[in-house]
Amino acid sequence: MFETNNLNNIDISVESAFDTYLNAISEENLEYENINVEDSLSRILYDDITVKRDYPSFDKALEDGYAVNSSDVLSARQNNPIKLEIIGETNVENLERLTILTKQAVKISKGAFLPENADAIILPADAKEKDGLLNVFKSVTPDSWIAKKGEDIKADEVFIKKNRKIRPQDIGGIIGIGFRQVKVYKKPVVTIIPTGNELVPLDVDPDSNQIIASNGYVLKGFVEQFGGIGRISSIVKDDLNQVKSAISKALEVSDMILVSGGSSAGSKDYTFQAIKSLKNSVIIAHGIAMRPGNHVLLALVDNKPVIGLPGHPVSNLTSFHIFGKAVLRKLAGSARSFWQERKDNIKLDALLAKKICSPLGKEDYVRVRLFEQEDGKITAYPYTGKSSFLSTLVKSHGIVKIPSECGCLYEGDRVEVLLF
Amino acid sequence: MFETNNLNNIDISVESAFDTYLNAISEENLEYENINVEDSLSRILYDDITVKRDYPSFDKALEDGYAVNSSDVLSARQNNPIKLEIIGETNVENLERLTILTKQAVKISKGAFLPENADAIILPADAKEKDGLLNVFKSVTPDSWIAKKGEDIKADEVFIKKNRKIRPQDIGGIIGIGFRQVKVYKKPVVTIIPTGNELVPLDVDPDSNQIIASNGYVLKGFVEQFGGIGRISSIVKDDLNQVKSAISKALEVSDMILVSGGSSAGSKDYTFQAIKSLKNSVIIAHGIAMRPGNHVLLALVDNKPVIGLPGHPVSNLTSFHIFGKAVLRKLAGSARSFWQERKDNIKLDALLAKKICSPLGKEDYVRVRLFEQEDGKITAYPYTGKSSFLSTLVKSHGIVKIPSECGCLYEGDRVEVLLF
Repeated sequence: MFETNNLNNIDISVESAFDTYLNAISEENLEYENINVEDSLSRILYDDITVKRDYPSFDKALEDGYAVNSSDVLSARQNNPIKLEIIGETNVENLERLTILTKQAVKISKGAFLPENADAIILPADAKEKDGLLNVFKSVTPDSWIAKKGEDIKADEVFIKKNRKIRPQDIGGIIGIGFRQVKVYKKPVVTIIPTGNELVPLDVDPDSNQIIASNGYVLKGFVEQFGGIGRISSIVKDDLNQVKSAISKALEVSDMILVSGGSSAGSKDYTFQAIKSLKNSVIIAHGIAMRPGNHVLLALVDNKPVIGLPGHPVSNLTSFHIFGKAVLRKLAGSARSFWQERKDNIKLDALLAKKICSPLGKEDYVRVRLFEQEDGKITAYPYTGKSSFLSTLVKSHGIVKIPSECGCLYEGDRVEVLLF
Repeated sequence: MFETNNLNNIDISVESAFDTYLNAISEENLEYENINVEDSLSRILYDDITVKRDYPSFDKALEDGYAVNSSDVLSARQNNPIKLEIIGETNVENLERLTILTKQAVKISKGAFLPENADAIILPADAKEKDGLLNVFKSVTPDSWIAKKGEDIKADEVFIKKNRKIRPQDIGGIIGIGFRQVKVYKKPVVTIIPTGNELVPLDVDPDSNQIIASNGYVLKGFVEQFGGIGRISSIVKDDLNQVKSAISKALEVSDMILVSGGSSAGSKDYTFQAIKSLKNSVIIAHGIAMRPGNHVLLALVDNKPVIGLPGHPVSNLTSFHIFGKAVLRKLAGSARSFWQERKDNIKLDALLAKKICSPLGKEDYVRVRLFEQEDGKITAYPYTGKSSFLSTLVKSHGIVKIPSECGCLYEGDRVEVLLF
């Protein structure tokens, strides 16, 4: 009665499953939309942004002071001031360009047009006005406190490359060069399907053998953190036709589907059969050499990623982190820059507080809780609690990977922790 | 005409300004609100969450299989199976607890009540049913694939400590223990006041001597990323009374104020005077030994933090990152855990690609662009462009700090990059 033929006996490696799956997911038909720049925080740029004119558009002063030609004040010293004639004053409201000749200066405000022949600003602290003359007490290097036309940004230059996840300072830059709208990838819609006879919705008080369907909210949160729109469908019973119909319905409105629960090989696990019986389905992997999450199912239906995640909270979350996140980043258009990857996968080094062992041949993902020691060192205390447990997920701060060829890690070993 | 008496000649150190300012900001009157758990992503928990009952509430099976007493099958081997009597079957719908005696087993589904006297589950792969008997081919350690009452979470235990920034898995946990609402800190309201005669709003086409007011959008983005609500006020002219009145008005509706521009000591810089002339104002620092951002102004008015940020984009952002972010995290209630701090301040190690020098006695914050080399090493290329430049902000990926006692850093030096 327990059907085990769903699972291959030989599990494929995490790396191989990951590469095969990610390669099978196409980015070709990703869609875009135009939105206001000020609403674009954390959206992913669809096209390169190119600048139409030079910034600044004229040579300008960057500070209040006196516009001079630096060669006139080369020998200026505290005890040997150079005297320049002040021929006028200009500020940001003055659109006319003045000109200085040898040994002349113009009093100037920040942002104003730099006079012709001036190549630097003398700061007020380094000069003193007296009887219409300026006593300069310090030499200045050419180019000090001025910006030349186009020195910030050149016309026709690529200002920001596509696929950037837009940061606050990027919004400032894009606004600064006069854009009002920006073209971004549409957010991928991810439907999460909670399955299981034991599940009840959030607003029902569970009997002692029932569980509130909480995995969907965890997945929705991560989907949103990584740039998708998360939708949680109604809870689906452990029934082949109901699972199949829920996936079919979700396909109509989703770019990606996460089936939570039922991916294993138990008597009531129908995710595999449901996906297999759908038209245009391809199973990429079912049974991966990892723990927890061994029974994760990676598939495509109508070229859309459909992932079966084990129902136990820890396995659910771990398999999403290993596979779902990368798929989502690809569909969202953000998976191209290594430094963005570093921000989406925050890691830190810690010293293991307790020996942990793992079966050879399986990648093991161990939850850890971090402690900061008095000397500033960070230690990682491993939780080996069962994968159905909510508490270790909540108490842990990250995951440590034990590679498949590694048996044990020992107290004091340096480990890399993926924060989550 | 250039008033320099606003600024102390001796700038205080970043560390001293930071500590004094942060200590002066009170967390005592921070307010809370009750919200639905499913809407609480990234909000900050106001109270400890304590659990009311044991989880699980009964001993249960974690997998499909056969509930046995492990001592009955100690000697079970592939070539020496132990025979047990199957006395019944149970599943998650069955609320009645069965009992096994010596050499008995119950067929059980994941999630079901564990029978009395059973202490482990035999997985289907390790046993075979035949004529009402179970042939067990492998011994099992006590406690395998079962969860005991309270093993996940004990009643009255602190489940999540206050001040946590709620993660997706925390939402799952909080929902799982039956909470519908959660008490979180109110988001601090931060008003950003753009000042400067040269500024025009987003919907105006700037003349060549005008600049679109973009800093406010950068600050608003960061305020929102770090848990605040950002409001951008109308642009304020360089006029003492207008700056003063804008700050007064903002105080009525804000927990924190960022005045962008006018914090320096130029002829049109009124932030200092405006704050000084307000009732209940305290200037903590004006003139800090850092670059850029030397002219940042740290103040309190009515016990609320008011920060004057230099108007040049790079100085503006750098000073916000050094001071504003920490203040905001404190007001938001999230500044208590070191690992959350690591997530809010993501750092990575890189090798410097080019020598950079800095004046002794000042902390220097240098923008860097990161490159990943073929061997996986990351190099940081420093931008020494002027602080009025938008382009280096957009092109850089992070900041490297050169300590005040350090003159130069050399090509190949290992540096810590704060991503931004």
